[in-house]
Amino acid sequence: MQIAFVIYDRFTALDVVGPYEMLSRLPGAETVFVAERPGPLRTETGVVALTADKALAEVPHPDVVVVAGGPGQSALMEHAPLLDWLRAADDTSTWTTSVCSGSLLLAAAGLLRGRRATSHWLALDQLRAYGAEPTGERVVFDGKYVTAAGVSAGIDMGLSLVGRIAGDDVAQAVQLGTEYDPQPAYDAGSPDKAPAHLVEALRARSRFILT
Amino acid sequence: MQIAFVIYDRFTALDVVGPYEMLSRLPGAETVFVAERPGPLRTETGVVALTADKALAEVPHPDVVVVAGGPGQSALMEHAPLLDWLRAADDTSTWTTSVCSGSLLLAAAGLLRGRRATSHWLALDQLRAYGAEPTGERVVFDGKYVTAAGVSAGIDMGLSLVGRIAGDDVAQAVQLGTEYDPQPAYDAGSPDKAPAHLVEALRARSRFILT
Repeated sequence: MQIAFVIYDRFTALDVVGPYEMLSRLPGAETVFVAERPGPLRTETGVVALTADKALAEVPHPDVVVVAGGPGQSALMEHAPLLDWLRAADDTSTWTTSVCSGSLLLAAAGLLRGRRATSHWLALDQLRAYGAEPTGERVVFDGKYVTAAGVSAGIDMGLSLVGRIAGDDVAQAVQLGTEYDPQPAYDAGSPDKAPAHLVEALRARSRFILT
Repeated sequence: MQIAFVIYDRFTALDVVGPYEMLSRLPGAETVFVAERPGPLRTETGVVALTADKALAEVPHPDVVVVAGGPGQSALMEHAPLLDWLRAADDTSTWTTSVCSGSLLLAAAGLLRGRRATSHWLALDQLRAYGAEPTGERVVFDGKYVTAAGVSAGIDMGLSLVGRIAGDDVAQAVQLGTEYDPQPAYDAGSPDKAPAHLVEALRARSRFILT
């Protein structure tokens, strides 16, 4: 089983490393980071450089596609080399997935039309504009399409996918191995729970980087 | 405020990207990935290559030190270039921190003697052998020393540290921006909660990689 993680200039690190950390522990999985051109790619902060070992063209038929989100996504919404690859890879994939604003790229490729899906909470309106049906769930399964909410939600998606692919026992072993027993010190991780003034402040900034 | 993330050959990706994703959103923070020698370093799977932009020697006085864990840690427990740097950096740091087996490196440097600390649940006995006092908590503060449990616990540590450094409002904004509202599909993230046969199986394998 080949699992391709799609990154690009100005992706968000946790978007891709979260699901990678879960899915890479699937017995027999071959994981690979791919980009239009191989080589190091920087996150939106410029601080983290993660290497794409293969070009998209070198990985035409992954079993699982995971598209990262991040501010760089907005520059790619009409970028044929990526969108064409997504459509072609989706033709033969078992699972086509995304984290955060990565779902906007799947939607721009026409893959989420009429499907239940999610994205970063600040991107749900845009997701709807591309024909998807946004939900408030953190991880949305619609057939073989799996989309996760913002940034950290890819961990939950990855764990759920491990369960779907290899069963509950393997998923629980992965959860135990990564000690994924989250205990955030605050309870402000969604717009329903966060103080209203912070929700408004983030909406006003309207993009994902909090600086 | 300079925040240095220490990586090395065969580190674990989420160990460092988790706290990075939280701490990099601190207003005014300068984050940098450091290693003994700059350049790309591979995780234990060989799949992810993350670039250290600076050598340890180029970053002598970070305000915050974050030491990643991962299987490669075991080769460094007597490695003077790293341990000497940790001791020297700790002389002037505001916070000295670790994720997962990264605490074993802090302990090997003599920095956790007599202190309450944690590590991956499979490494707690070793942590005790180096003079620390392991606890069952997910994130342990003992003065300026902050240690997190296995792999994913660095996210919780990063969020807590954001709160200590910049206050609850900023921490909640970071949590909302990263949509950190975890909803794992299973409840097996600690040895207290996981099925006993999985705990035993992981103990038997005795290292962190689940393959």
